[in-house]
Amino acid sequence: MEQMIQEINKRLEELLSQPQSGAVKEAMKYSVLAGGKRLRPVLLLTALKAYGYDYHQYLDVACAIEMIHTYSLIHDDLPAMDNDDLRRGRPTCHKQFDEATAILAGDGLLNQAMNVMMNTAIDDHMKVMLTSVLFKASGVSGMIYGQQQDMYYESHQATLEELEDIHHYKTGCLISAPLEMAGIIIGKEQKELRNLGFHLGLAFQIQDDILDVTSDSQTLGKNVGSDEENGKTTYVSLLGLEKSKAYADDLFKKCLEDIYGLTCNHGIMIALLEKVIRRVN
Amino acid sequence: MEQMIQEINKRLEELLSQPQSGAVKEAMKYSVLAGGKRLRPVLLLTALKAYGYDYHQYLDVACAIEMIHTYSLIHDDLPAMDNDDLRRGRPTCHKQFDEATAILAGDGLLNQAMNVMMNTAIDDHMKVMLTSVLFKASGVSGMIYGQQQDMYYESHQATLEELEDIHHYKTGCLISAPLEMAGIIIGKEQKELRNLGFHLGLAFQIQDDILDVTSDSQTLGKNVGSDEENGKTTYVSLLGLEKSKAYADDLFKKCLEDIYGLTCNHGIMIALLEKVIRRVN
Repeated sequence: MEQMIQEINKRLEELLSQPQSGAVKEAMKYSVLAGGKRLRPVLLLTALKAYGYDYHQYLDVACAIEMIHTYSLIHDDLPAMDNDDLRRGRPTCHKQFDEATAILAGDGLLNQAMNVMMNTAIDDHMKVMLTSVLFKASGVSGMIYGQQQDMYYESHQATLEELEDIHHYKTGCLISAPLEMAGIIIGKEQKELRNLGFHLGLAFQIQDDILDVTSDSQTLGKNVGSDEENGKTTYVSLLGLEKSKAYADDLFKKCLEDIYGLTCNHGIMIALLEKVIRRVN
Repeated sequence: MEQMIQEINKRLEELLSQPQSGAVKEAMKYSVLAGGKRLRPVLLLTALKAYGYDYHQYLDVACAIEMIHTYSLIHDDLPAMDNDDLRRGRPTCHKQFDEATAILAGDGLLNQAMNVMMNTAIDDHMKVMLTSVLFKASGVSGMIYGQQQDMYYESHQATLEELEDIHHYKTGCLISAPLEMAGIIIGKEQKELRNLGFHLGLAFQIQDDILDVTSDSQTLGKNVGSDEENGKTTYVSLLGLEKSKAYADDLFKKCLEDIYGLTCNHGIMIALLEKVIRRVN
């Protein structure tokens, strides 16, 4: 998996060297190349590998997904949104540059993701199908809807059901999309892969809520305790720490069941799942 | 042309009714359906008409262009950017809603433009070619680069050459793109249409600079004198009013020559050009 992440990082660097020079390009590179787990692109490529596909043809697609993820982090960190000053162990984009540059860098990454999708060397029909799924997941009926609901519930108390709805969209859609896209490429089990993605996405978000109260900013690479500061309802605030951990465990078990239901190399998928389960940031 | 604008507006309304309900969707509709000249989508459809094409098949493509234009206005109006409170005769998006919603509405429109391009009923190869041109024009090597340069020269004096460079990207790219896209659809004169677009874009921007000092906010639908307030170098500040008018006239004459060089119905294109020349907002 480390090799795969290196390949993703190398290709991201190449793709981000293409745009016109200037502060916005620098800010895009700063935020994307700051590291990060690369979970979303790794999900696409690992699923392809697990079905016996050579994933290298889809490296650009994987990078486009990571660009969309990073754009969303840059905009979510803005003063008008979560107002965070630490991300991936560095000052957030608007702290390192300025607010205008950070807004444009986010816009630029979303645009660049599109350019990358359009220019990658796969056939046009596949390109259109994959891009449709990806931008549906990231759009106003997907991730952006989740961010809107997340903001709304900063000043309103959310029930467990409402919280799950927020995270289905805010986190789930863009974790599910790469797996669904793998299903489209291999031409089967699209729905099953999508479901695995939503279970994994929810478990991932509960982990996030847990880490926000149990970890430290050095390990996490972002500020801890910020959910409470922003008045956000989280799994921990609703269920308490122990029940949240048990809930995440249940969901990871569901993911394992989902994986066993797929006709792929289970070991490859389980190795990735275990990496997520053991994550500390 | 009025009928064409009505068709665009009707289709925009349909396309914006599709996303998940909420504040972001409302903000997207608020900003897009506030009116506006619809110059960019009209350019695409008018060019197709002038070449004898039934433009209705490309109505969605036209709407995607307008969504990208509106997203750029919403983000440019933000406090961290131009900090404007009036647009298209109404409070700007962040004034009517709030800053977070405006950021997300811009993101949402850029995303939705993508969804519209991917879902429209034209063949995949054409879809990919048109989308490539459109998102190259709107991206970090196009419109976003122009906005970055525009911000930079708020605190630096620009020469005439630098000013032209700003507007080549900031205004020119997204006025040129629809004409270039028409060239791709009709399968000829792509370069000539693109050049016409850049001449028209520059003339349009000089008009903007002139109107900013000669018009009133009621007629213009946005604040006047804001360029001077933001310390921006404009054609008027560099050349004076009379020379700016003469420069715009020269460029419009160039546009006319460009049109006569095309193998299309010149009357249709000239009618559009004259509408731009006579514009008061």
